Amino acid sequence: MNGGFMQCSANYMPLSPISFLERAAVVNGEKPSVVYGGIRFSWKETHQRCLNFASALVRLGISRHDVVAAIAPNIPALYELHFSVPMAGAILCALNIRLDSPTLSLILQQLEAKVILVDYQYLQVVLQALEKLSPKICKPPLLILIPECDQLSSNGTIDHDLPPGSLNYNDLQGSTAEPDFEIRRPLNECDPISVNYTSGSTGNPKGVVYSHRATYLNSLGAIFQSEMAKMPVFLWTVDMFRCNGWCFPWAVAALGGTNIFLRENHSAKLIFEAIDLHKVIHLCGSPCILNILAHHASKSDQIRPLKSTVNILVAGALPPPQILNQVAKLGFNVSHGYGMTEALGPAIVTPCKPELKSQYNLMMEGVDVKDPSTMESVPYDGKTMGEIMFRGNTLMLGYLKNSKAMIEPFQGGWYRTGDLAIRHSDGYIQMKDRARDMIISGGEAISTLEVEAVLLTHPCVLEAAVVGRNDDCLGKTPCAFVKLKEGFCSGGNSSTSEEIMKFCGEKLPAYMVPKAVVFGDLPLNSTGKIQKFVLREKANKQVCAETTMLHE
Amino acid sequence: MNGGFMQCSANYMPLSPISFLERAAVVNGEKPSVVYGGIRFSWKETHQRCLNFASALVRLGISRHDVVAAIAPNIPALYELHFSVPMAGAILCALNIRLDSPTLSLILQQLEAKVILVDYQYLQVVLQALEKLSPKICKPPLLILIPECDQLSSNGTIDHDLPPGSLNYNDLQGSTAEPDFEIRRPLNECDPISVNYTSGSTGNPKGVVYSHRATYLNSLGAIFQSEMAKMPVFLWTVDMFRCNGWCFPWAVAALGGTNIFLRENHSAKLIFEAIDLHKVIHLCGSPCILNILAHHASKSDQIRPLKSTVNILVAGALPPPQILNQVAKLGFNVSHGYGMTEALGPAIVTPCKPELKSQYNLMMEGVDVKDPSTMESVPYDGKTMGEIMFRGNTLMLGYLKNSKAMIEPFQGGWYRTGDLAIRHSDGYIQMKDRARDMIISGGEAISTLEVEAVLLTHPCVLEAAVVGRNDDCLGKTPCAFVKLKEGFCSGGNSSTSEEIMKFCGEKLPAYMVPKAVVFGDLPLNSTGKIQKFVLREKANKQVCAETTMLHE
Repeated sequence: MNGGFMQCSANYMPLSPISFLERAAVVNGEKPSVVYGGIRFSWKETHQRCLNFASALVRLGISRHDVVAAIAPNIPALYELHFSVPMAGAILCALNIRLDSPTLSLILQQLEAKVILVDYQYLQVVLQALEKLSPKICKPPLLILIPECDQLSSNGTIDHDLPPGSLNYNDLQGSTAEPDFEIRRPLNECDPISVNYTSGSTGNPKGVVYSHRATYLNSLGAIFQSEMAKMPVFLWTVDMFRCNGWCFPWAVAALGGTNIFLRENHSAKLIFEAIDLHKVIHLCGSPCILNILAHHASKSDQIRPLKSTVNILVAGALPPPQILNQVAKLGFNVSHGYGMTEALGPAIVTPCKPELKSQYNLMMEGVDVKDPSTMESVPYDGKTMGEIMFRGNTLMLGYLKNSKAMIEPFQGGWYRTGDLAIRHSDGYIQMKDRARDMIISGGEAISTLEVEAVLLTHPCVLEAAVVGRNDDCLGKTPCAFVKLKEGFCSGGNSSTSEEIMKFCGEKLPAYMVPKAVVFGDLPLNSTGKIQKFVLREKANKQVCAETTMLHE
Repeated sequence: MNGGFMQCSANYMPLSPISFLERAAVVNGEKPSVVYGGIRFSWKETHQRCLNFASALVRLGISRHDVVAAIAPNIPALYELHFSVPMAGAILCALNIRLDSPTLSLILQQLEAKVILVDYQYLQVVLQALEKLSPKICKPPLLILIPECDQLSSNGTIDHDLPPGSLNYNDLQGSTAEPDFEIRRPLNECDPISVNYTSGSTGNPKGVVYSHRATYLNSLGAIFQSEMAKMPVFLWTVDMFRCNGWCFPWAVAALGGTNIFLRENHSAKLIFEAIDLHKVIHLCGSPCILNILAHHASKSDQIRPLKSTVNILVAGALPPPQILNQVAKLGFNVSHGYGMTEALGPAIVTPCKPELKSQYNLMMEGVDVKDPSTMESVPYDGKTMGEIMFRGNTLMLGYLKNSKAMIEPFQGGWYRTGDLAIRHSDGYIQMKDRARDMIISGGEAISTLEVEAVLLTHPCVLEAAVVGRNDDCLGKTPCAFVKLKEGFCSGGNSSTSEEIMKFCGEKLPAYMVPKAVVFGDLPLNSTGKIQKFVLREKANKQVCAETTMLHE
């Protein structure tokens, strides 16, 4: 057959998650979209509010592909921005609320954001960051303050500590969209829709750019993965500034579901109350959410098992099995995701039930473990190590203004995760470690994750991180950094370095047992990840000190 | 932000349902894909079989965009062709098994099919059709016979009534794919993947061409619509030659589900047995499936209510409420789809529960009721009539070799369905009639569907169709064609024209009551649709006869 078929506006439209909101306004118009304390919106209202703000952005002079930044916790305004900013043709950058002002300033400079929306709680840090901006390099963005959403509009009086010309989100919501406002749909579905900054476990945050196509498809992937039915009740415990809340702002709209927002989204009390009150079916987050729930439940007599199953998907290192068991007993159905900002969030999900296999994202076309130099797949032998690689439509476009970093991870036609894994005969991919964290000791590869997993089963250990420390003879040896649980202290009543090494020695081959244990708090970055590069420095300074002592 | 982002083979792959099979072979490799009598395949096996046949097609000289036709009931081979044909870069045309040899010959000529796969039951009609092909216009396709799938291969002996060179599907499956065979993925995701012939209620079948992109997205849409969880058990009661089984061959692969096949897929006994034996969760079909199930259940003492809910999606005119009630009582959860071949199947689905609203396909970007000349949307007033129009990514590419028919339906940037509807204040779209079936009588528009719905509530009426008949005074008047249930006959013990008109008069305004009632069988086309154009001719011949009689 010789084609000659044409795509026209009837049978081809660029894929964009904007469509999900438009459909929800028609199909689920009267159903609740947003619940936040006493605030409730319907899908018709949310659609209208997004139109209002998109129209306001255009009126303010925002052009296609301008960046609109926002710093806010999980509140309705940040949800709305996931639609209104793309509807104005612009690119959303939701910033981590835990950033300090120097980092924030650096990021704003790189973004060249035209507008920054600021939740009132984060005003001070933003004002400090704006002061640090060099006006020569970058015109400061227009500031739009987000008050609580039930607050009256400012009536034109803006706090006098705000930069002149600043505006108020509620004021802008007060005027409805221009009647002739037309949504600026993407001209090409691969146009950018958002930037998400990686926490940067290397200490160097990168702006990861997503496309309309990738987020549209990943929203569908997220729905499949979690087997969400129509009109789910979704509790926002995953931060929306993390991989755009893994695409769930758009996924919930696609299903005409209800978004439950909590300003304090890590309060176990509020989470349990919301589950009970709103009949929550799904929530997501980092694994610490499991610790929070288990801890609260074990302390409180009032927590009864859930009335019906609540699905939790967590992404990151899993907490120890006893926490998982506690959470499962309460009635949570836990799954564990492996992914990264570059893959729009979890790309492989493993249900925490032994009878269920891990599955990769439906939209991910290829998931492989390869030798990074030859690009050959490693055998399914349960021992040969390779790098986990992805290819598919749910990967980033690239890094913002970082052409070197942009080409490297896609070399060879696959996205190189930098994570090392083996493949078992049944196809199961077992992650061993980040490539840069893996310790080669006397020729043996040591997965720091495996050593950490053993440390976390020690009754006194709350947190643990293992890094390599230079060794003249073996190259590197494992060095453990350990934070003990409340009520325990090193030495005294509980744990000594020797005791912990002995504990590990009973469960690990000798070469994997830490040769040093250091007690104390672990350095975390703004997204709560342990900064191993800080610990590596610390471990090696210690070696130097010891060596110096020896030489003295 | 200025882009400069590139799509590469890592982060951009043309959307194609081929991917679903590849993923199922990895993620659900050992799970059952196909059950057909005693035959069972796993997803790994189905994947391998599709590779084998794709490789065979390439070996036989099939090029990109060649057409491979098939005529078979719902058997595993036809399922496999939904993957293997596109994997060879070719276009699948699954043909209606009820076509007669002249129509089949016409279609084969238009298709210029290079290969035709023929289930053994349909060999005679195909041989007759091939004889009719004009060798000057069209080189006859290579015939590949499909024996029962557990039959041994032919050992090279081919029936001597087959054209020389004919092959056997089981033989070709006997040799595995060449080790260097590479799947011919679409170069562009808008490349064609299949052709589906419309039944043509106007009597003029058209080849509707689907793209890889549209079928990929519509498979996802079908999953959403039916809220299918992972690994569903799907019973094949909808014919795969109808809109590619509404994309379910691909949807079930995406979910790693199990396909249950029945050669006799309209046998109520076999359907109930399969539901019980395989724990079927979903089935689809034309509404006659509801009649079949209700009828069988009312006759048989052995049919108990289902052990668990089975979801049925039917597309076409709904049967009367008493049938729906009977089926619901058995434990079926019925939804009703409105759509057409051009929209890849049902585009709007209404659950048969009063509390649930109708929803349009998640992938359909626009659903509207418009004045076909001004293209203005009609008001939500429950009375202004307009034409139902669609736009979105789940519409056909166009009609095969029919450039006039190709441009017309997409004029104005919307797909014009030819169906008339009104919109209610809550957004509900109520279909009134096919544009060409609507009767204008004395200035009033009469929906033939509404009159038929009333006729079907008459206790003696099995089938009914209403068409317009010329009238000197009123323009047209409704004329009803009625088939009575078994045991009833017109006149005698049950129904006369007068009695039926009186029945209608009690439920309809006078102008909508049929002015003539004709008893007898209704003319059906190959897909079971009533051929109204035949009835219109018949009705008007009758008027002529009556007029002649009057003049005599």
